[in-house]
Amino acid sequence: MIIDWKKIAWEIYEKLKEQISKMDRKPSLGVILVWNNPSSEKYVEQKKKWAEFVGMNFALYRFETNISEKELLEEVEKLNNDTNTSGFIVQLPLPDSIDDKKIINAINPTKDVDWFHPINQGKILIWDNSWLAPCTPSGIMEIFSHYDINLSGKIVTVIWKSNIVWKPITAMLINAWATVISCNSKTPDISKFTSISDIIISATGQAWIIKQEMVKDWVILIDVWFNYIDWKIYWDMDFENLKDKTSMITPVPGWVGAMTVAVLLKNTLKAAK
Amino acid sequence: MIIDWKKIAWEIYEKLKEQISKMDRKPSLGVILVWNNPSSEKYVEQKKKWAEFVGMNFALYRFETNISEKELLEEVEKLNNDTNTSGFIVQLPLPDSIDDKKIINAINPTKDVDWFHPINQGKILIWDNSWLAPCTPSGIMEIFSHYDINLSGKIVTVIWKSNIVWKPITAMLINAWATVISCNSKTPDISKFTSISDIIISATGQAWIIKQEMVKDWVILIDVWFNYIDWKIYWDMDFENLKDKTSMITPVPGWVGAMTVAVLLKNTLKAAK
Repeated sequence: MIIDWKKIAWEIYEKLKEQISKMDRKPSLGVILVWNNPSSEKYVEQKKKWAEFVGMNFALYRFETNISEKELLEEVEKLNNDTNTSGFIVQLPLPDSIDDKKIINAINPTKDVDWFHPINQGKILIWDNSWLAPCTPSGIMEIFSHYDINLSGKIVTVIWKSNIVWKPITAMLINAWATVISCNSKTPDISKFTSISDIIISATGQAWIIKQEMVKDWVILIDVWFNYIDWKIYWDMDFENLKDKTSMITPVPGWVGAMTVAVLLKNTLKAAK
Repeated sequence: MIIDWKKIAWEIYEKLKEQISKMDRKPSLGVILVWNNPSSEKYVEQKKKWAEFVGMNFALYRFETNISEKELLEEVEKLNNDTNTSGFIVQLPLPDSIDDKKIINAINPTKDVDWFHPINQGKILIWDNSWLAPCTPSGIMEIFSHYDINLSGKIVTVIWKSNIVWKPITAMLINAWATVISCNSKTPDISKFTSISDIIISATGQAWIIKQEMVKDWVILIDVWFNYIDWKIYWDMDFENLKDKTSMITPVPGWVGAMTVAVLLKNTLKAAK
């Protein structure tokens, strides 16, 4: 079965829309954009579209790439103190002249709807995930919850590259009582782990790192990342040869972005409350 | 080989003593103790003994069990603001009338040498571990570093029960490029994982959960927890039957406490600087 992410995202948006329609004061999402790359523009466009669809206010704060770190910190501080902004994000990447970490650490954790501030990350590690949640990992968890997949006792392999996705998803899966195997580029033989897994989540950007012979029947496959080779896009999973062997597989492309935005808006609603 | 934790702890203490001897202003460790249970008394005693050995100041703040949450929060605030206190801990458990989380969240993260505040936990998840470190997990990492064990590419199974140890050790091992398998009480068959592991860290308190036939030759075994059955103490590892099969094994009892205190004092020195 191919995972119907459009339906899952749609259900989240509809539910948010209904909740927000009952609120006297609408939640407001702010986005700081310092860059001129087309991917960032596209991501921001999606966030605006769906924020407005669910009935939130949306404000874009656009700055030239020559803005200084100090000036950007001041802009972050303005939004921290702005009572009209429920939550905001700083769209990454930032220009090289600016230290990402400094900017992210300056965001008030209660407005950090992108969930990048260490205090939010820490919360998921020790307390619970009732508060703001990491967007892409929570998007993955939304899939499991939509299909009533009980993670307790399941063997889940996570193959990763970036901090943003794999560490929080590992923590969230562990919180849900899964047995989690965290593989990286130094893992001697990943097929040893993929072949015994009930669920595989891959976010490496390495073309077709997961192949048909590496997984067992009825596995659930979640493909989170891609790369370009000779101008052609390749995802982590060899989708065409895998899809008939799995019980569920994410289609490509599209789902990651949509689920990430859906969770971002859920966070913004939480922050508004 | 039996891991010589006394030597490892001793080396840490000696190094701290030397560093502190060169400081004009000695680091100071504070301990808040609200309880009258003999284990807590014993733990505090050890902290005092070694803090004084390395040349730190040590201050014990003892309160009756009828202290209110509000009063205890005020005491925490006093130590947050006391420039003579480099770092301090609140010895757990606290009486049931007091919410642990509230108290821990009130500690200034830069003085949180027990590493329980969410902002510190978050730091290990995303940034690095150059700052204050979780005590028991770091004690385990000290063992690997003492014996020059390169974790990159190693398969490490962590079997856990408590938040304090297993989540941070999982994050730290992942940071060190190990392939980490996190097992819990819902894992269908842990021997499937222990039998392919280079290193096993067990902290369940379940008697002899790790037996000889479940591990491969030359495995490294780290035993973190114990339990009492009929007044007899049992650790997670069946030590007598395992010791000749391993390349390294932690002896019991003693090592966990010693390494934890050693890291606590390292944290206090960091906090003083």
